Amino acid sequence: MTTVGLVGGGQLARMIALAGVPLGLQFVFLDPSPDACAAGLGQHLCGGYDDRDKLAELARRADVVSYEFENVPEHSVAFLAEHVPVFPNAHSLATARDRLREKALFDELGIPTPRYAPIRSLDDLKRCASDIGFPAVLKTCTLGYDGKGQAVLRGPDDLDDAWARLGASSPLVFESFVDFSREVSIIGVRGKNGETAFYPLSENLHRGGILRVSQSRAGDPITALAQDYCRRLLDHLGYVGVLAVELFQVGDTLLANEMAPRVHNSGHWTIEGAEISQFENHLRAILGLALGKTDAIGRVAMVNFIGGTPDPADVLAVPGAHLHLYDKEPRPGRKVGHATLRADNGPDLEAGLERLVALAG
Amino acid sequence: MTTVGLVGGGQLARMIALAGVPLGLQFVFLDPSPDACAAGLGQHLCGGYDDRDKLAELARRADVVSYEFENVPEHSVAFLAEHVPVFPNAHSLATARDRLREKALFDELGIPTPRYAPIRSLDDLKRCASDIGFPAVLKTCTLGYDGKGQAVLRGPDDLDDAWARLGASSPLVFESFVDFSREVSIIGVRGKNGETAFYPLSENLHRGGILRVSQSRAGDPITALAQDYCRRLLDHLGYVGVLAVELFQVGDTLLANEMAPRVHNSGHWTIEGAEISQFENHLRAILGLALGKTDAIGRVAMVNFIGGTPDPADVLAVPGAHLHLYDKEPRPGRKVGHATLRADNGPDLEAGLERLVALAG
Repeated sequence: MTTVGLVGGGQLARMIALAGVPLGLQFVFLDPSPDACAAGLGQHLCGGYDDRDKLAELARRADVVSYEFENVPEHSVAFLAEHVPVFPNAHSLATARDRLREKALFDELGIPTPRYAPIRSLDDLKRCASDIGFPAVLKTCTLGYDGKGQAVLRGPDDLDDAWARLGASSPLVFESFVDFSREVSIIGVRGKNGETAFYPLSENLHRGGILRVSQSRAGDPITALAQDYCRRLLDHLGYVGVLAVELFQVGDTLLANEMAPRVHNSGHWTIEGAEISQFENHLRAILGLALGKTDAIGRVAMVNFIGGTPDPADVLAVPGAHLHLYDKEPRPGRKVGHATLRADNGPDLEAGLERLVALAG
Repeated sequence: MTTVGLVGGGQLARMIALAGVPLGLQFVFLDPSPDACAAGLGQHLCGGYDDRDKLAELARRADVVSYEFENVPEHSVAFLAEHVPVFPNAHSLATARDRLREKALFDELGIPTPRYAPIRSLDDLKRCASDIGFPAVLKTCTLGYDGKGQAVLRGPDDLDDAWARLGASSPLVFESFVDFSREVSIIGVRGKNGETAFYPLSENLHRGGILRVSQSRAGDPITALAQDYCRRLLDHLGYVGVLAVELFQVGDTLLANEMAPRVHNSGHWTIEGAEISQFENHLRAILGLALGKTDAIGRVAMVNFIGGTPDPADVLAVPGAHLHLYDKEPRPGRKVGHATLRADNGPDLEAGLERLVALAG
């Protein structure tokens, strides 16, 4: 019986476990919250991500360790890696959790990004703003997600406030705002033997910095370019597991926004909408098993439930809808569930999606 | 948070729970085995099916109770039903668990069966054998499954032995052996409001009385007849939940073999191969939610692992294969897992199925 250790016990860990239990796997989660929503699917070590005793226990109980999120202290990852196989590797995690290291890697691998610059002072910020121009976004290098740790800069008047709010987290990143035609993401997976596989492109819609809707776009002409960028990262990092890359499309080009060294919200549709889900393929990769087929099955879209969930009965009344509740206390801006819609054709997808978006509010 | 109580904590309960956790449901299982393989997915009440205290606790903790198998004492079902909503209803369970009552219902509803007769003595048996002829099967009325509680009667010489072996469980059923062209099953589901839905026909292959392979046969011309029989049973019984009916096909006719008042092994392919699985639809039904789409998605087949499992790596290397291990100790004749294969066309299905059957041994 193989035991998989996961750092983090939220909804991503929960969906990894739901994919892994049928494979005969057992799970142990390290999560500081007593309410960690994956806890019921395995053993829960309730402790901080820098709790040496709990990290040691995780390493002892697990045959392999992975992550549901990247904001783990580097010394914790290093400690784990001394005692148990850890995938993706520490270098991948360290790169993905720091926007400047991440962008430096994009540069190194020839993956275009929006214009950016490191910011260490208010002077830096002012110089950069006059150099690159507005609108722009000021972001913390680490620990930002779902729109947190960011300030939108519309003009010179916003600079002092933004610095006052985020300056303590310096160094920051100044990013030119991209007037994109759409946001997409590519989810790739790489096995221990270097085998790679990619899901069809996801087209994503954000609101308030939080993902609202993803649609699979099998056959989209920009897919090959997105896959090429993702493959460069996977191979360069000697990556094992699922990697998501978020991209802005501008004309026929793609600019890398960020990468996530883990299963990703824009790939939740793969549970019902792809032959083998991102969750199962992540497990297959870190366990050294053959990767599964990543083809989409028909047309698929996913709608997030943020801050609260509609009546389950209403969601289940939408033909082809699949409900996923995370068993988390509703709070404003918190992801508490999603619904995936699978259909055999575009009109059916559009009709159902409209209903789900209305229910999501 | 709704809690579903299940009598039985084996692989069927496990797969019901795996379907229900994403819906935000919690589970409590009553099962006498400390190793019940569903236990890790909820709360396990370890006790016998006639343990009044444990039954009372199950009723107290659950908002609704269902079954993963029909061999529950009638007084236990009656006790539960006094304290908590129970689906399917006690009458359906009592009918399905007794071959003579079941066949009487088939007769009443005009559903043809193989010739049969009740047997209460060796004299009965001999008279019946000379009346109906050989080959035939002698079966216990209750508690038979997976080929247990049965004796094949090839000629008059087999009668004494068969009676010696099974007579203590009298009354028995004498059934004429049917020279069928194939075995099929139909899985239907009925909601609290009387809404019904049916999965595509399953074509089943048994060996040693145990199901080995099921294939979905969407569009099979005999489907309408099978659905008609299943609907008669569902409506007559005021049934709520999933009901499986096993049938022999002889020419253009179907003879009912038996029914199972629960999710069924021949419907495991619906997890990946139908829009909404039998497990989720069973939950939707007993919770009064809208039933989900039962359409098959492409071509699907399932192979059981009996007595042991192949190397998971070999199963996962088959493109489109989905592995389900039940976390049960291997024992001869015991179902310990299955694999489902989904494909977009017949040749791909045949090629993968051949590999899986070889692996299953």
